[in-house]
Amino acid sequence: MTRKELIAQINTKKSFLIIGLDSDAGLIPRHLVSCRDPVLAFNREIIGATHDLCAGYKINTAFYESRGPAGWESLARTLDHIPDGLFRIADAKRGDIGNTSRQYAKTFFEVYPFDAVTVSPYMGEDSIRPYLDYPGKWTIILGLTSNPGSGDFQMLPAGEEEVFARVIRKSKDWGSAENTMYVVGATRSSQMQQVRSIIPEHFLLVPGIGSQGGDLSRIAEAGMNDTVSLLVNVSRSIIYAGDGHDFALKARSAALQLQEEMSGYLT
Amino acid sequence: MTRKELIAQINTKKSFLIIGLDSDAGLIPRHLVSCRDPVLAFNREIIGATHDLCAGYKINTAFYESRGPAGWESLARTLDHIPDGLFRIADAKRGDIGNTSRQYAKTFFEVYPFDAVTVSPYMGEDSIRPYLDYPGKWTIILGLTSNPGSGDFQMLPAGEEEVFARVIRKSKDWGSAENTMYVVGATRSSQMQQVRSIIPEHFLLVPGIGSQGGDLSRIAEAGMNDTVSLLVNVSRSIIYAGDGHDFALKARSAALQLQEEMSGYLT
Repeated sequence: MTRKELIAQINTKKSFLIIGLDSDAGLIPRHLVSCRDPVLAFNREIIGATHDLCAGYKINTAFYESRGPAGWESLARTLDHIPDGLFRIADAKRGDIGNTSRQYAKTFFEVYPFDAVTVSPYMGEDSIRPYLDYPGKWTIILGLTSNPGSGDFQMLPAGEEEVFARVIRKSKDWGSAENTMYVVGATRSSQMQQVRSIIPEHFLLVPGIGSQGGDLSRIAEAGMNDTVSLLVNVSRSIIYAGDGHDFALKARSAALQLQEEMSGYLT
Repeated sequence: MTRKELIAQINTKKSFLIIGLDSDAGLIPRHLVSCRDPVLAFNREIIGATHDLCAGYKINTAFYESRGPAGWESLARTLDHIPDGLFRIADAKRGDIGNTSRQYAKTFFEVYPFDAVTVSPYMGEDSIRPYLDYPGKWTIILGLTSNPGSGDFQMLPAGEEEVFARVIRKSKDWGSAENTMYVVGATRSSQMQQVRSIIPEHFLLVPGIGSQGGDLSRIAEAGMNDTVSLLVNVSRSIIYAGDGHDFALKARSAALQLQEEMSGYLT
């Protein structure tokens, strides 16, 4: 998917919402447990109830891997249910030496038809290059994450700026704003402004709204540029909004509330 | 596997060699291609020919993931062929927020019976804690890797030492030398000595011998402590030592040469 197509998708939906399918087999509604593939049944209903309200879906691979080979089948069939034109992110956070990263790139861009994959920058340039060789595919590099542990190493001062800022500043030239995005879980507006000063053009993927406690209005204000270039991921507070037979409707209500708020920031 | 058992395994084999099963479906001998699962057939022969010469095997998950669900079946069946008592490492380099890391820990310690998993430290403490909750299992944290990109962020000066040294210094207290190891792809003896000054007791897993060009004698001299606490991984130069019908014998010869050299350092 090109940058232009992604921006068009956001403007059509009036939404920069990404819904995270962190679908935990242990947390889905009980009435689905007797299905042949309960997670697939769950995802299909969530997607059916929300796809007109979001720009795409993010599939957290850990929740599928932990079910063995059947989990990967479930992941593949979930992708089949995402309508064309929506942005499909593999949240895999892979990162290894070049010949190994090539295998991961093959996994998420060839074996499974994702548009984007999240990667960890710790091993540097040759660990990220292989993903950038795929035209029309996106590499989403971890910059600043939103979890408590982000303070341990990402926030270390390294010269005049923190490690996360050095990561973004150095890696931004490996690809371009046409094929690279950054995970920026900015809990403070000042950090988001700092990121925007380094990469004014790039798309940012912002986690941490909802269960992790971020503030959408502040993120929209500090993170948007003149072509939006912002995706906000929400997982648990949408997909687990309900746990009864009406779980998909509850998920839709939660997504609709966010889409309506986003629509206001887009005008 | 306990630290004591692992040390016993090294002393019994007179070898601290780990053989990396980075088994690429495109690189295995042609006569195996008609097998039902060529990679499994390849791994089975490699394991059969080398298991008396090494302390364990490291399975690079990328090479299995890139074959879809069938690759994970192949990984599981490869594990079945590793004799009891050998150390089984999942080289997965995962790293995500706590609830996601719990899923990855479940994957590699429950769904698949690995003894250890490699993890990336970029997201900090809560991304690593879930692995440490498993008694008898090992978490192998990326410290300093051996690839060209290790210079990009791991070597950044962060205060009085580099990022990789800060990572090791901070994370060493999350677990202990009984359940945590570090990947240290030290290309210079001075770096290995620096690591040993921070973690004198911990096991180090050293990649980069063979295809990546490290020097075994230097690594043994700088990396060993009085209980050895060193594992050296070799992948491609053993498993691809031959490409004909005698590939397993060629792999054995390559492994034997390393084992004999290691045996000398162990006395």
